Amino acid sequence: MSDLQFDAWAAAQRQRCETLLDAWVPLEAPAGLGEAMRYAVLEGGKRLRPLLALAACEAVQGETAAAERAAIAVELIHAYSLVHDDMPCMDNDVLRRGKPTVHVAFGEAQAMLAGDAMQALAFEVLTPDSGLDLALQARLCALLARASGHAGMAGGQAIDLAAIGQPLNESQLRDMHRRKTGLLLQASVMMGAACGNPSAAEHQALLTYGADIGLAFQVVDDILDVTQDSATLGKTAGKDQEANKPTYVSVLGLEASRRYATHLRDEALAALESAPRLRSQRLRELAFQVVAREC
Amino acid sequence: MSDLQFDAWAAAQRQRCETLLDAWVPLEAPAGLGEAMRYAVLEGGKRLRPLLALAACEAVQGETAAAERAAIAVELIHAYSLVHDDMPCMDNDVLRRGKPTVHVAFGEAQAMLAGDAMQALAFEVLTPDSGLDLALQARLCALLARASGHAGMAGGQAIDLAAIGQPLNESQLRDMHRRKTGLLLQASVMMGAACGNPSAAEHQALLTYGADIGLAFQVVDDILDVTQDSATLGKTAGKDQEANKPTYVSVLGLEASRRYATHLRDEALAALESAPRLRSQRLRELAFQVVAREC
Repeated sequence: MSDLQFDAWAAAQRQRCETLLDAWVPLEAPAGLGEAMRYAVLEGGKRLRPLLALAACEAVQGETAAAERAAIAVELIHAYSLVHDDMPCMDNDVLRRGKPTVHVAFGEAQAMLAGDAMQALAFEVLTPDSGLDLALQARLCALLARASGHAGMAGGQAIDLAAIGQPLNESQLRDMHRRKTGLLLQASVMMGAACGNPSAAEHQALLTYGADIGLAFQVVDDILDVTQDSATLGKTAGKDQEANKPTYVSVLGLEASRRYATHLRDEALAALESAPRLRSQRLRELAFQVVAREC
Repeated sequence: MSDLQFDAWAAAQRQRCETLLDAWVPLEAPAGLGEAMRYAVLEGGKRLRPLLALAACEAVQGETAAAERAAIAVELIHAYSLVHDDMPCMDNDVLRRGKPTVHVAFGEAQAMLAGDAMQALAFEVLTPDSGLDLALQARLCALLARASGHAGMAGGQAIDLAAIGQPLNESQLRDMHRRKTGLLLQASVMMGAACGNPSAAEHQALLTYGADIGLAFQVVDDILDVTQDSATLGKTAGKDQEANKPTYVSVLGLEASRRYATHLRDEALAALESAPRLRSQRLRELAFQVVAREC
């Protein structure tokens, strides 16, 4: 498959996600809550997590309809985390995906509630009344809850807060990034894979792939924070340095960070090579894109 | 069963919940997050939602171990909602269960993260690797997500925010209360019942019972806000009036609100009478306690 074919596939999947989000994020939620939720998640983002879920499912010949639910659920969790993370008591950011952040547009209380409701909605999406095997529903909920909770994303955010102005060594930094970003990206892969029937070897290879690109993503995030401007990122650039947050760039330096991101990508690609069904051009291309992205 | 027997049962269940929360709410969560989560949910509260889940399960001869997971999950959701609701951007309250609120004790950022992580933990508790039937895991997650999200608790909070200083008619007030408090109390009953095998008639009767006591709980909350002092409530009294929030007392008056709470209790008791297995002294006594409570 050429890059063009990948691009066409990714564009089609993004469009499909938009359609599903439009259908599932309720306009009719009361008192402006639905508007805030939709503002937070529609028309924005690279949809990397959905693409990972859909590509992993496809590689193991899983059920597309199930993977679409996984994709939307994980994107809802990601989007809620951005809403809460941007709030004044956290990163206090006013710009996201090129638009005013949710609390700027809707007020802090509505932003907090929208985030809370988006987390619940993720689990609703995974537990429909019909059309999705009940054991798979349970499995997907288990993966998502663990990746987003205290041992995962929320825990990573807590470390991130506590680390402001604190020197972290590389191992502590890796742990923070793994929790804050990596586990949810890995869960995207594993939730997609759970919609099929991966062998034990495939399961292990996808765990490795997910861990590697999950960490690579955050290393690149640290790099982009210092190398790009806010207009390109669609969010405020230079925030980490300004907030005196430890990052891969501050710990390893810029060049070593770039080499590390490339190394992680190559490890991810090697994991895919270990199992024939995983030599999927889509999973490979996603690994390249995580590292080559410029915003 | 005498009141004394009920009291002994309730005390034993509360103790059991405390033991489970102590085991499942992680002290080891990073950077103070675990402490904040434990502060928010341990040693506090009437544990009404867990008692409802456990009593409903027992009435339909369900699995206690499953109902215990349901009980803890619903209490985690309730506790997280209090943490977020108390924050400065919402009700800005400093006292809860007789202690400083979580954001006062741990800061706003940690309070927001603790709430987020408690919501995720609720779904973790419902999806253990073993020991709980997978179809039941999915069913419990579905019930909990719907009761706590945009159509339930979070939606009710959004209406509550928007209603400050607005006159609501009785039907709008009922809708707000039903979402804000009622649906999660009803879900406690239905999650407990899902751990057994209720007949269609029992299912319907428990839905009615849960809806009635869910609404009665909030009517009584409105009454207590004007009739009790902060020391008795363990939270700031008179907040609704001060914030100019519509309540049953402001809409119906105090005496009519009391009569309405008693009426709802009697409807709940009548629903239990409709099915032999539901003539459970525990479910009956819980209905009495919801209305007779003084804090």
